[in-house]
Amino acid sequence: MLKAYIVSTGTELLLGQTPDTNSLFISRALTQMGIKVMGKAVVGDNHEYIRRAFSTGLETTDLVICSGGLGPTRDDLTKQVVCEVLGCKLERRPEEEECIKEFFARRHRRMPDSNLRQALFPSDAEALPNPLGTAPGMYLEKDGKTIVLLPGPPREMEPMFRAEVAPRLRRRVGQQKQVVLSRVIKVLGPGESQVEEMLQEVLEDPQGAAIALLAQDGEIHIRITLEDSLERATRTLQELEDRIIGVMGWHVVGFDQDTLPEVVGKLLREAGLQVAFAESCTGGLAAKLITDLPGSSEFFWGGAVSYANEAKMELLGVSESTLSEYGAVSPETAKEMARGIRERAGVDIGISITGIAGPGGGSSEKPVGLVYMGLADNREVKVKEQRFIGGREAVRILTAKSALDWLRRYLIGRG
Amino acid sequence: MLKAYIVSTGTELLLGQTPDTNSLFISRALTQMGIKVMGKAVVGDNHEYIRRAFSTGLETTDLVICSGGLGPTRDDLTKQVVCEVLGCKLERRPEEEECIKEFFARRHRRMPDSNLRQALFPSDAEALPNPLGTAPGMYLEKDGKTIVLLPGPPREMEPMFRAEVAPRLRRRVGQQKQVVLSRVIKVLGPGESQVEEMLQEVLEDPQGAAIALLAQDGEIHIRITLEDSLERATRTLQELEDRIIGVMGWHVVGFDQDTLPEVVGKLLREAGLQVAFAESCTGGLAAKLITDLPGSSEFFWGGAVSYANEAKMELLGVSESTLSEYGAVSPETAKEMARGIRERAGVDIGISITGIAGPGGGSSEKPVGLVYMGLADNREVKVKEQRFIGGREAVRILTAKSALDWLRRYLIGRG
Repeated sequence: MLKAYIVSTGTELLLGQTPDTNSLFISRALTQMGIKVMGKAVVGDNHEYIRRAFSTGLETTDLVICSGGLGPTRDDLTKQVVCEVLGCKLERRPEEEECIKEFFARRHRRMPDSNLRQALFPSDAEALPNPLGTAPGMYLEKDGKTIVLLPGPPREMEPMFRAEVAPRLRRRVGQQKQVVLSRVIKVLGPGESQVEEMLQEVLEDPQGAAIALLAQDGEIHIRITLEDSLERATRTLQELEDRIIGVMGWHVVGFDQDTLPEVVGKLLREAGLQVAFAESCTGGLAAKLITDLPGSSEFFWGGAVSYANEAKMELLGVSESTLSEYGAVSPETAKEMARGIRERAGVDIGISITGIAGPGGGSSEKPVGLVYMGLADNREVKVKEQRFIGGREAVRILTAKSALDWLRRYLIGRG
Repeated sequence: MLKAYIVSTGTELLLGQTPDTNSLFISRALTQMGIKVMGKAVVGDNHEYIRRAFSTGLETTDLVICSGGLGPTRDDLTKQVVCEVLGCKLERRPEEEECIKEFFARRHRRMPDSNLRQALFPSDAEALPNPLGTAPGMYLEKDGKTIVLLPGPPREMEPMFRAEVAPRLRRRVGQQKQVVLSRVIKVLGPGESQVEEMLQEVLEDPQGAAIALLAQDGEIHIRITLEDSLERATRTLQELEDRIIGVMGWHVVGFDQDTLPEVVGKLLREAGLQVAFAESCTGGLAAKLITDLPGSSEFFWGGAVSYANEAKMELLGVSESTLSEYGAVSPETAKEMARGIRERAGVDIGISITGIAGPGGGSSEKPVGLVYMGLADNREVKVKEQRFIGGREAVRILTAKSALDWLRRYLIGRG
């Protein structure tokens, strides 16, 4: 199976303002093609670091793809470094010089002499046309290794990758017997080490797959990656997925690119139900997540952000005595909030959230992270207590997602 | 001047789905501190690549900062590799074992045995406390080199960096003669090319600084970077800042790490005013942004997410005839929403937002991106029309920020 190393060049990528979107695009494309990305380097316009990055890539993988560093200015070094590392020379390509001259002529601009440097190539390299800029790309196969150089601006790099690089790489992959398949199973509820324990049997006998756990925005993502013949990889992946779903059950909220709001939205739409939210500590975050979905007005009525106690009384009809007797963060208040928003909205389901997001406001009896949620339908109001761990942002996102997940489970009959 | 190398570990970073936000945060922080980032490596949970990355960092720079790979699961290798590269051993730290046990005990959860692996450290290392998770960080100075290991989840990594790493590094930087200083000035309103035009004179005579513009979440960030003696760099930076503020005026919403909600929260607190929101197309996002701030209950009453027309009537008292005559996205509806939430909440200021976030719902008369906002105080209700460009997410974030910015300008007497 083919392995790849990605190099991104550009001093701006080291200052922390410009994210390295090129390597993200390239890794995604390679992964989808069945090529395994082993590592990435981000370097400035600096000879030593570019050389080290290419050396690592060529020593440990079959394919090095680099973006940036093909421009006409003095700090663009990539092609020189490639020649050094491979022990070859840059030579003029008159036909590429013509292309660059034409590019400027068509635009009625004067060509700076420095641009002609973009027509220099190592002897065995193919030049890749760049209809959107002056820097041609480069594709070079030598001693079993492939080196691809692409321009830095994403609007030039991406079309060149699709048109010129992807077809060549697909041919190389086609000659491979092995492919890499991967699948993400997303679960909500148990923490990372708990998921690890629940999956112990699968993790101890992963049928040749790599299984990794990753905590992300309150969810645990279980990633299965398999390297095998297409037929065997497909079969094993399905088997592993079935085993994991067997263990995780209704904790599974979705797969691959699925998001929890999408899953909930789909279930609400299918059931023809409408929902309204009453949020305190999440301050509108749960409503924000559900309205991220286009067309959410079909199943989402709206809600109240009842941050102050007065807002809980005024917008939801929570009684003053409940608030003073039990406090804003209590099962009783959560219950009245859920019932209140459901009645006011006249919808099928009312969801309420009240809790202590921190960092202040906690006590030994009611610590930061304590949350009560309510779910009201036409028969009853249920209340649930949860305790979340983390800073304000983490508690808020865990709380909002957990409320959406309760709604999801309610809709599949597991609430 | 100190040089640094950044390593990010995690197989998920190589698949093209998860952007490497940690290295972005760390590069920004180091650059602001006057430390020059020379390169970055992104590696999987793979011994060989982690080792190569640390070797490159230690051979070419003074400081290697690595995030990820401190978790309890089997694929977390970073500390072992650091010991190999430096030729030292991992040893048990009973006091760290206690911290981890306590972390679970406080949360009434059982601790998996694997978590104790997080209490292993190289002999000379300082353990950095992690109040938000179980993996302590590590700070190690050896043979003139500094190695810092941080947990992978950003909500644990960022606070640990601010509280534990930044002060230690600032002390190291204080001993240097040349420094790099940088400053970000954040503006909201004009677009990137408009800002570029307004700043033409400054950009043509940047007094030796590098000035870069970056569009980010609806704001334009103007970054000044200077490399000089501490005294000269400080003076020039101040001069450039004054010139830029002179041109941008009240478009400036904040500096460096300031966020618009923080700036608005501070102004509201100082003025002793309380606000409530009525949101339609932003679906709770404006309320979410203001409640990101701890202690926001002091100046934020709450609000209504009046997504459906019925919610606008029920929660805000918008009249049915206004909705049917002018539509939900109209100056008239925005006005009634702002007045409605202010009266219902009994607060000083009511802010309303109604618009078309897309992708559906637009027409030639009322296109996607058209937004009306209202601002009601004790004297009047003002309405403003805005037209934003972009996809659903971009329009929603621009709209919510623009509403907060209107509030900001109102509070400084420029609304």
